Amino acid sequence: MDTHEFRRLGHDLIEWIAAYREGIEGYPVMSPAQPGDISRQLPRTPPLKPEGLEAILGDLDRIVMSGITHWNHPGFFAYFPSNSSLSSVLADLVCAGLGSQGMSWQTSPAATEVEDVVMDWLRQMLGLSEAFTGVIQDTASTATFCALLCARERTSAFSQNRGGLQAEAVPLMVYASDQGHSSIPKAALLAGFGKDHLRLIPTDADHALRLDLLEAAIQADLAAGRKPCALVAAIGTTATTAMDPLWAMAVLAQKYGLWLHVDAAMAGTAMICPECRSLWNGVEAADSLVLNPHKWMGTGFDLTAYFVRDPEHLIRVMGTNPSYLHTAQDGEVRNLRDWGIPLGRRFRALKLWFLIRDQGVEGLQARIRRDLANAQWLKEQVDAAPGWERMAPVALQTVCIRHVPDTLRGDEAALKTHNLAIAERINHAGRSYLTPSVLKGQQMIRVSIGAEATERKHVEALWADLQAATLGR
Amino acid sequence: MDTHEFRRLGHDLIEWIAAYREGIEGYPVMSPAQPGDISRQLPRTPPLKPEGLEAILGDLDRIVMSGITHWNHPGFFAYFPSNSSLSSVLADLVCAGLGSQGMSWQTSPAATEVEDVVMDWLRQMLGLSEAFTGVIQDTASTATFCALLCARERTSAFSQNRGGLQAEAVPLMVYASDQGHSSIPKAALLAGFGKDHLRLIPTDADHALRLDLLEAAIQADLAAGRKPCALVAAIGTTATTAMDPLWAMAVLAQKYGLWLHVDAAMAGTAMICPECRSLWNGVEAADSLVLNPHKWMGTGFDLTAYFVRDPEHLIRVMGTNPSYLHTAQDGEVRNLRDWGIPLGRRFRALKLWFLIRDQGVEGLQARIRRDLANAQWLKEQVDAAPGWERMAPVALQTVCIRHVPDTLRGDEAALKTHNLAIAERINHAGRSYLTPSVLKGQQMIRVSIGAEATERKHVEALWADLQAATLGR
Repeated sequence: MDTHEFRRLGHDLIEWIAAYREGIEGYPVMSPAQPGDISRQLPRTPPLKPEGLEAILGDLDRIVMSGITHWNHPGFFAYFPSNSSLSSVLADLVCAGLGSQGMSWQTSPAATEVEDVVMDWLRQMLGLSEAFTGVIQDTASTATFCALLCARERTSAFSQNRGGLQAEAVPLMVYASDQGHSSIPKAALLAGFGKDHLRLIPTDADHALRLDLLEAAIQADLAAGRKPCALVAAIGTTATTAMDPLWAMAVLAQKYGLWLHVDAAMAGTAMICPECRSLWNGVEAADSLVLNPHKWMGTGFDLTAYFVRDPEHLIRVMGTNPSYLHTAQDGEVRNLRDWGIPLGRRFRALKLWFLIRDQGVEGLQARIRRDLANAQWLKEQVDAAPGWERMAPVALQTVCIRHVPDTLRGDEAALKTHNLAIAERINHAGRSYLTPSVLKGQQMIRVSIGAEATERKHVEALWADLQAATLGR
Repeated sequence: MDTHEFRRLGHDLIEWIAAYREGIEGYPVMSPAQPGDISRQLPRTPPLKPEGLEAILGDLDRIVMSGITHWNHPGFFAYFPSNSSLSSVLADLVCAGLGSQGMSWQTSPAATEVEDVVMDWLRQMLGLSEAFTGVIQDTASTATFCALLCARERTSAFSQNRGGLQAEAVPLMVYASDQGHSSIPKAALLAGFGKDHLRLIPTDADHALRLDLLEAAIQADLAAGRKPCALVAAIGTTATTAMDPLWAMAVLAQKYGLWLHVDAAMAGTAMICPECRSLWNGVEAADSLVLNPHKWMGTGFDLTAYFVRDPEHLIRVMGTNPSYLHTAQDGEVRNLRDWGIPLGRRFRALKLWFLIRDQGVEGLQARIRRDLANAQWLKEQVDAAPGWERMAPVALQTVCIRHVPDTLRGDEAALKTHNLAIAERINHAGRSYLTPSVLKGQQMIRVSIGAEATERKHVEALWADLQAATLGR
């Protein structure tokens, strides 16, 4: 493709994306595709000759679009908000067009220095002290994995430079809430701790980690000769956005010498609003912290913010320093390849830079406050409506509910069928999409509010549809 | 940003990228920025109010561009080819514009199904049998890490589901060439094996792993009661693109029950040309294989192809299956979140789909053959030129050389200074950019050919500049 063809098709695609976003309410939120619907329309073998990109753009409309679930649809209430704001779309275009590499400072100095500056902007926006230094990673899963690797190496006094975890005499222990994200057990297992050395602590009625059970587990492990290593606090659990008691967990972390990692993947964005920050009181004691601007904030996937108190420790765990990557400036600069697992790095900071400048901090705060108010509105409707139960506090923007008709009360199996049917009716109608989920054995319907396009009227429509769905409509 | 503003700025950026690529030879390849040059031009605090994106686009030209090293410049001979073809730029634009999530099949069926199809196209293009299944990962570093985790779990009979690596009685061993990429020791350390259990095997005069020393190391470990676990073969070492003896290594892997991982990150792209495939004879015996279409092939970073023989094993190591991710189709589809470390996934397959259809297999082959011929041409010039030495065979597109004037012969310190000065002259002149590197204690100049824009005339210009630089010009 030469630049003339790029211009022609590029302008077409700008129009295509603008029209897509303008017309997004015309699509069913959840893709109606059945398994194999997309792949069976594609040739089994690659083309030998160039096809011309007009053909590809035609296939986007004809084949791909029916297999897209529209995360930027105003009726998207499933999983988590994953906003891909138009300013960050443009930033990704610039990133791709430049095609530069940010693995070392030298390989594109702007990639490192813009990242340094905007991650410090983000630190300030979140109200974090200068004790934290931020770096961009791809996902919270990876960042949490890095955190547990760093914890492992701190507690083991850098076993990786000797015999590794397999040569340690005393097993290291990891603690987290049983409502934490699946990436936490995954990270613990991949880091080699083993399932036997992971303690998933039960939670209280509000689905927050129980401190008494945490401390009892730590003491039992110590008594049995095991070594407490890491504690993960969920600021926003996955199912209900419950808040673990971070301050008290930080006290325990200090008392027992645990690495404290805070997983605020989705909820962390709320902390750009000062009135929300009491929810993570104690965060300053964290050794590491992850939140995803690619969720509620709006940078477009993937852009995870990973903050650490001790970057030198991170570099010592993740760093490599082969001859072919030496540069004259190594002593003066950050080489971000040493701040995570991958060597290569895209210029992802552009997305955050574009977003913050396009919206301003106040613009971003206003949008978060709109979503908080929408969640409170829905909570009030649910609380006032006969037959509906709310399953968890609404700390931020997640509203967990179920419909309990008098005729089914007490019959969990029937309630499961009934609520799954409600969710299915909503999802298949196409106007909204939400995630049915199981909370401590009870089927619920989880409404996650926060798509950039979601206004009050969309939440109102969802509520009307939910009520109608209870009647089988 | 609304769609009207998106249209206006989007069209501007399409023109901006086209003009950038057309005028790329006007930039010095290596950024002339000094540490802090970029960051000191950016405000220390985030803007409270929206700034309007015109201001940002102005800052791209005024601030960012001076800090970009131009990896798509025809004079880019450093590190590795990292082609970001214009068709893949458009694919990234579509990916960002759609903003869909591919973590599960249900979260956007097209993301999974297009990936399945194009990864199978790639398998066919590489001449791999149907025994391999491909999945996209971000980088080869991550893929190699996954490979060693899978090896660890196979050899330990899933220790992660019990006490983890820390509960294993017998230490597991990893083997690789001492010319392998830095991501291999990094992966081994992060996976918990420990430096003491990583054997970096010396290489022969052509910089390929020595089989005799490999087998001796395995036997010594067995004799000492250690358990051989994984063997990494470099198809293309980092410094010289040397080829490890894969066939014979596969025989040893089978003999000793080792997981065989093939790191063909850069060189793997050459295998779309059947005449190159003898270089990786034995690849069919690999348990896992990584190559980077985001390098020489041209998809734009990041798009790593990870092929495995046993996807069920990968899923068992990487999989999680929490309630909130259950969907009705789980039994019928691939949920690619379970095929790697991150949960979230961009629609990266679009880049490969666009590239292959835009160029056709034959178009991609023609470009690779052009680069191979350019490397052979440079090799011939070097071999014929008095005072120049070639440090390694030219298997593909990497030409490792140094200048040895009669007056300095035998004086390694002086040769180092002399060759570093040559590289520095070239790099600071701005017409070309290459990487000085140390090979077994000897300073060399490494010429990596394969930027999409690099024609014969650019290699000729580099060779003329290298010769002039020996004279201090």
